[in-house]
Amino acid sequence: MAFEPLRPGAVIGILGGGQLGRMLALAAPRLGFRCHIYAPPGDNPAFDVSCAHTAAAYEDEAALARFASGVSVVTYEFENVPSATCAALERLVTVAPGREALRVAQDRLEEKTFLSRLGVPVAPFTSVAGVQDIEEAASRIGLPAVLKTRRFGYDGKGQAKIVSRSGCAEAWSAIGKAPAVLEAFVPFDAELSVIAARGRDGSFVPFDIPENWHENHILRQSRVPARVAPETVGWAGDIARGIADGLGYVGVLAVELFLLRRSGREELLVNEIAPRVHNSGHWTLDACHVSQFEQHIRAIAGWPLGDPSRHSDSIMQNLLGLEVDDWERLAKEPQTAVHIYGKAEARPGRKMGHFTRLHPLGAIAGKGK
Amino acid sequence: MAFEPLRPGAVIGILGGGQLGRMLALAAPRLGFRCHIYAPPGDNPAFDVSCAHTAAAYEDEAALARFASGVSVVTYEFENVPSATCAALERLVTVAPGREALRVAQDRLEEKTFLSRLGVPVAPFTSVAGVQDIEEAASRIGLPAVLKTRRFGYDGKGQAKIVSRSGCAEAWSAIGKAPAVLEAFVPFDAELSVIAARGRDGSFVPFDIPENWHENHILRQSRVPARVAPETVGWAGDIARGIADGLGYVGVLAVELFLLRRSGREELLVNEIAPRVHNSGHWTLDACHVSQFEQHIRAIAGWPLGDPSRHSDSIMQNLLGLEVDDWERLAKEPQTAVHIYGKAEARPGRKMGHFTRLHPLGAIAGKGK
Repeated sequence: MAFEPLRPGAVIGILGGGQLGRMLALAAPRLGFRCHIYAPPGDNPAFDVSCAHTAAAYEDEAALARFASGVSVVTYEFENVPSATCAALERLVTVAPGREALRVAQDRLEEKTFLSRLGVPVAPFTSVAGVQDIEEAASRIGLPAVLKTRRFGYDGKGQAKIVSRSGCAEAWSAIGKAPAVLEAFVPFDAELSVIAARGRDGSFVPFDIPENWHENHILRQSRVPARVAPETVGWAGDIARGIADGLGYVGVLAVELFLLRRSGREELLVNEIAPRVHNSGHWTLDACHVSQFEQHIRAIAGWPLGDPSRHSDSIMQNLLGLEVDDWERLAKEPQTAVHIYGKAEARPGRKMGHFTRLHPLGAIAGKGK
Repeated sequence: MAFEPLRPGAVIGILGGGQLGRMLALAAPRLGFRCHIYAPPGDNPAFDVSCAHTAAAYEDEAALARFASGVSVVTYEFENVPSATCAALERLVTVAPGREALRVAQDRLEEKTFLSRLGVPVAPFTSVAGVQDIEEAASRIGLPAVLKTRRFGYDGKGQAKIVSRSGCAEAWSAIGKAPAVLEAFVPFDAELSVIAARGRDGSFVPFDIPENWHENHILRQSRVPARVAPETVGWAGDIARGIADGLGYVGVLAVELFLLRRSGREELLVNEIAPRVHNSGHWTLDACHVSQFEQHIRAIAGWPLGDPSRHSDSIMQNLLGLEVDDWERLAKEPQTAVHIYGKAEARPGRKMGHFTRLHPLGAIAGKGK
């Protein structure tokens, strides 16, 4: 589809009012764009930094139509945009990344099937819908394994690990007896992610690859560069490019990977994809010439993709819950960028902010966590 | 006065809706703050990125009172805030930098007198209010000299150069016969500026010093580092610290300097001061750990001042008038950050945006313009 680059002054619509929408809304004005945020009523920190906002349900077709009439393109900060919402908007305005990316990312079975068909390495998986299914799948895949709901999983929600056959029924209950996928447990040596952009012209630009640590299934820290072989970096980029091309993707995409070291060789398995800017790319705000947020805006606006290269090594760490109260101590640290999301309530585990420590290029290459 | 650091979530009031207010309003949310912009109706690009705005005259005391009641501190993006506006606000809320900085910066005679009393080197100057005054002053100071209105001068407006005694009357007409200062013309070898912050606790943190070029009295380019001796950098910082201390200043301050090379020695003269973030500090957005905009927010919020150190060398260039239409070409340049201010109309000479080319530290040290 022909899409003229949006001129400065154009309005970009963003579905979702959380920290990702907020950081997109802070990046867009650098290029002269204005933002209109659409999100259900609630604590929406993105509203504070945007030109306009609509607080309405994703099912409110009249509100969606008004929103669409005032924007030049619509994007989203999260993958669980209802497909009816996306369809309603697509009748009125360009939505990027498009519906196919949402369809695949919203359903773990669709996602794994899509990845397998592309030839992307994933852990063995099977669709399951009951205890007997799970027991049979466990026999084939082996244990330990992880039971994951097909839909609405994030930060470890909707997951249960199964270590013995007797645990299948308990796991099925734990995930709410929802349609699920049983996946082989991957004893990974490291977690990586590819944050990359695909432009409207098919151009593909990955950032350097971060190495990630999770605690209680929530991202704790990302460091760049990752301590992996150059060939692994190239392989990861090729995987992400294949996925982006396969989806006809426009925007920034995140691909979470497991790294396994077997007899000195590095192997990769894709864990999941996120059709949006990603927590493990927040360091790009302070360590790169163009951040993931500006890159996403460039891509959906039809602009040339920006230079993703780093001027610094970096370690990004999330501020969860009351950790955000540490702002005064962190603000004193040299070479440290502090980001606070402006959320009203610091619930335990809630992502309230992050900080990124910068180091000269090459300074943290060989260092441990 | 005791001033507890503002907690994230607090609202910062900003007088002025132009690009400086906009970049302050984009920096404050990084620390969790919200912004309320106050500016007269018109083209106010800062409104597009702030939580709230008031479009009202600076003389509207009722609107000022409503504005003050909803913010924790007030700052400004320009030095020509009417003193009555500042006084009205100061009765209701903390204003930073304070009234003394405005008083001195609004009147070239007050400014020069203040600087002289501090022992800061300035070009010879005299207050003048008529052709005869100017002729007498020209005899004392020598020619060429520059006639400058005491008030409301910026980007070369309100200035006229006098090269011969016969030009005095013409210069007096050219500046609108307003109260003025006659200054000796300085045949400078380079223009520098100090961009520095002073905190509520008296802490003083300068950025590295840019070397600036003007065209038609409007800033064209700033490059960092400046090609000056280390002792000159130290001297310039000492001058700025003396000025900031002398004003009891809180926030980011700019001091414009002339550099003269005489028999191999570098001498400095202060040209003028600006009690605000400054065009010649825009490169800090992309080349420093903390930008001048975040630093100003930190200072007025009572936060610890941030690390001003650079991770990159940089050259910043303004986009004036229709030059902003170059965005697509600039967006393709590697290691280049593009900033577009979102102004509606690209009038000739109007500051519409800027771009900053980054280079590794040390890469541009010896290079020409």
